[in-house]
Amino acid sequence: MASTSNDSLPISIHNINPKVLECEYAVRGEIVALAQRLEKELLANPGSHAFDEILYCNIGNPHSLGQQPITFFREVLALCEHPSLLERNEINGLFSEDAIKRASQILKQIPGKATGAYSHSQGIKELRDAIAEGIKARDDFPADPNDIFLTNGASPAVHMVMQLLISTEKDGILCPIPQYPLYSASIALHGGTLVPYYLDEASGWGLEISELKKQLESAKSKGISVRALVVINPGNPTGQVLTKENQEQIVKFCKQEGLILLADEVYQANIYVPDKKFHSFKKISRSMGYGEKDISLVSFQSVSKGYYGECGKRGGYMGITGFSADVREQIYKVASVNLCSNISGQILASLVMNPPKVGDHIYESYCAERDGILSSLARRAKTLEAAFNSLENVTCNKAEGAMYLFPCIKLPEKAIKAAEAADTTPDTFYCRQLLNATGVVVVPGSGFGQVAGTWHFRCTILPPENKIPDVVSRLTDFHKAFMNEYRD
Amino acid sequence: MASTSNDSLPISIHNINPKVLECEYAVRGEIVALAQRLEKELLANPGSHAFDEILYCNIGNPHSLGQQPITFFREVLALCEHPSLLERNEINGLFSEDAIKRASQILKQIPGKATGAYSHSQGIKELRDAIAEGIKARDDFPADPNDIFLTNGASPAVHMVMQLLISTEKDGILCPIPQYPLYSASIALHGGTLVPYYLDEASGWGLEISELKKQLESAKSKGISVRALVVINPGNPTGQVLTKENQEQIVKFCKQEGLILLADEVYQANIYVPDKKFHSFKKISRSMGYGEKDISLVSFQSVSKGYYGECGKRGGYMGITGFSADVREQIYKVASVNLCSNISGQILASLVMNPPKVGDHIYESYCAERDGILSSLARRAKTLEAAFNSLENVTCNKAEGAMYLFPCIKLPEKAIKAAEAADTTPDTFYCRQLLNATGVVVVPGSGFGQVAGTWHFRCTILPPENKIPDVVSRLTDFHKAFMNEYRD
Repeated sequence: MASTSNDSLPISIHNINPKVLECEYAVRGEIVALAQRLEKELLANPGSHAFDEILYCNIGNPHSLGQQPITFFREVLALCEHPSLLERNEINGLFSEDAIKRASQILKQIPGKATGAYSHSQGIKELRDAIAEGIKARDDFPADPNDIFLTNGASPAVHMVMQLLISTEKDGILCPIPQYPLYSASIALHGGTLVPYYLDEASGWGLEISELKKQLESAKSKGISVRALVVINPGNPTGQVLTKENQEQIVKFCKQEGLILLADEVYQANIYVPDKKFHSFKKISRSMGYGEKDISLVSFQSVSKGYYGECGKRGGYMGITGFSADVREQIYKVASVNLCSNISGQILASLVMNPPKVGDHIYESYCAERDGILSSLARRAKTLEAAFNSLENVTCNKAEGAMYLFPCIKLPEKAIKAAEAADTTPDTFYCRQLLNATGVVVVPGSGFGQVAGTWHFRCTILPPENKIPDVVSRLTDFHKAFMNEYRD
Repeated sequence: MASTSNDSLPISIHNINPKVLECEYAVRGEIVALAQRLEKELLANPGSHAFDEILYCNIGNPHSLGQQPITFFREVLALCEHPSLLERNEINGLFSEDAIKRASQILKQIPGKATGAYSHSQGIKELRDAIAEGIKARDDFPADPNDIFLTNGASPAVHMVMQLLISTEKDGILCPIPQYPLYSASIALHGGTLVPYYLDEASGWGLEISELKKQLESAKSKGISVRALVVINPGNPTGQVLTKENQEQIVKFCKQEGLILLADEVYQANIYVPDKKFHSFKKISRSMGYGEKDISLVSFQSVSKGYYGECGKRGGYMGITGFSADVREQIYKVASVNLCSNISGQILASLVMNPPKVGDHIYESYCAERDGILSSLARRAKTLEAAFNSLENVTCNKAEGAMYLFPCIKLPEKAIKAAEAADTTPDTFYCRQLLNATGVVVVPGSGFGQVAGTWHFRCTILPPENKIPDVVSRLTDFHKAFMNEYRD
């Protein structure tokens, strides 16, 4: 197998694209590699560590931690996967009436029921119709199926947009710090410049227009042409939900400064506090009177998040508005090089945006599944937040939405020195110790960006609810021991 | 909706990445756009054209033309899509015993049966084990699951490799001409240089080492650093199957010249002539005594082609050998930015590489489905080839494999002038006229590259067998009329 280095081979670490070397993605970085090693050790030698399982809190991957899929969605997918089932009477006992109806309806829209065929490169038109309907119902503004590009999850859509916008390192993209590292990775791979704007931790990760202005001016003064503003709402890794007023300011800022607004809205269904509500940036723009000719906006959505959490399906889309026909043609061309996104993911995206409705037989049980997941996530978020805030030197903002907490740890000087001696960052040092002691996997804040001199980590709220007390006690015990060892 | 141009928007055709503008993908290009328009017109006004349906021969998309999926594959996928079905007795009448067994086995390998979770970024380890077993059985040489990166079809794998190899326009990739335009598109998007080598039409699209040498030297003399050689076997759009001896020469050439061999082997199951057999480049290399330290090789495989033709599933993989551990780490990192490929596609890739075997109950019916499709494709290839060769001024090599014919048309001077007047290439002119007259959609040779002054088009062998006589008569009548109009 792999050799570590071999001069006789035509490819080596010294002659590959330096942009690849620069790109980083901490969510599956070194801490996760260590976790996988520990997991193998546990399997080979049970009892070899102080814990009996690894708890992956590094990534928003709910089903890997026991969250169950929404039954209706899976029934429809299974029937579409094997359309000849619909000709068999036996399915009536096995599948809900509504799932049979929806699957039949979807298959009728696909010529020859051929879910094994490439579709239109934007995705099957009728599924985009369903998604547009869902967007319209959500926003109360018209939505056009031609604006939608179905993709294999949101990530490839983000890459497509970065590819379109970035020609040289002089092209800048304003990104929040902390940010989800897909953005920094994609900007690095495409050779652009990440222009950071800092979220204000003290005001619950507030997004200040004055900060945007300051960073935009600073980038301009360095000769950077800033093309777009990335906003993640609800926030990742920060969990805040923007207010309507704040969103209006952001839209106005983009309009004034000629920036494309890239709205990461993949957590739109994950809101846990009664005083906040998700508003799409499209809805906000339209309600301000800005139309197709006033503002260029991309909204990213995914089947991987929400109460559905179907990460393995790789479904998602981007909705583009305020793009001229000739630019759209270019996007279509690039999409067509990869032919189309996977059809199951397309179908699931249409289900997620157009779920069962009042009057459907399955509506009640669907709601029970959905609300069960969301209310449990809300409880888990609250418990973990309280636990973090009870720790010495730790403060943690509320997870109003999304799937993460991003606590701040004031690390003692001694710990910082120990990290230095171990040739790593203090937050990585903390997370590595945590993992080695407890089996809990979190991601160091440096993977997301943080104000210099502050240290954080991202922890998902996804461990099963019955394991949360255990997670809390493991975290608490570890933290106490850590502080006892390193307290100044 | 879309405006054609709007100076007040921050994005326009004038400020997007010029690499995006340069990239072309004819397989879904202007002729296909015209076909879609005609199809809409037919739907709105039946009888509005001389034909009653559009026949898409532009793209290797078998299920869109009525090819049925392999039952066993779909049964397994449906069960994996909705794992709780396996707890129900009713499935025994609905699914084959072998499918239930295989689905249970696969789900047992996925923790919590969570097909909705992100997997390892290379794909689920046990599915890679199954694929490695399949490769070993095919090649009779060991295969390592750690060499396999599962991807959403072969296209993203090709992009990943191009991204790794191309840093500047001085990085060159040797590609056959004619080529499948994914390669030219991907090289353009990554800003590299396509170094063409011409296949010899007169010898059945032969691949001459002397031509490779000539083009390599010519590129070097222009300061291009040639990194890799793309070989498509069986050929697309050209349909030839390389001989073992020719493959050995190619491997030797790559070894001598320090080139990475990029082997597009997605048509490995599509061979239609008794005297040719598919040999993977890995098998050829190993049988020549070249091991992991001697040659760097990437093999691309897809679930979209073969007798399975499951384009909509977006499953595929690349197998990399002769890559050092540090380069592999970089590939893994880039894969991890997109988390993983879709799980259904991963499962299907494992089925395709590890299908039912002698002794399985389903083996006979599986073979009947597989062989039915392959023998029908062989007949269709032969009929279409004969039809093309019977036309005035047309010659057509045999489709020994893959899914395409690439006939050469000697176009009369008058037709070339007419094309010029219509501001298009002569082959596009021919294909457009063909579409307008018959509803048959083929792709002009200029989308694949061809020797200057020669004209071709690519036509799939995929229309349903009962429609082939109609396709032949439409093509023949059109061609006669075309020649009568333009004959010099």
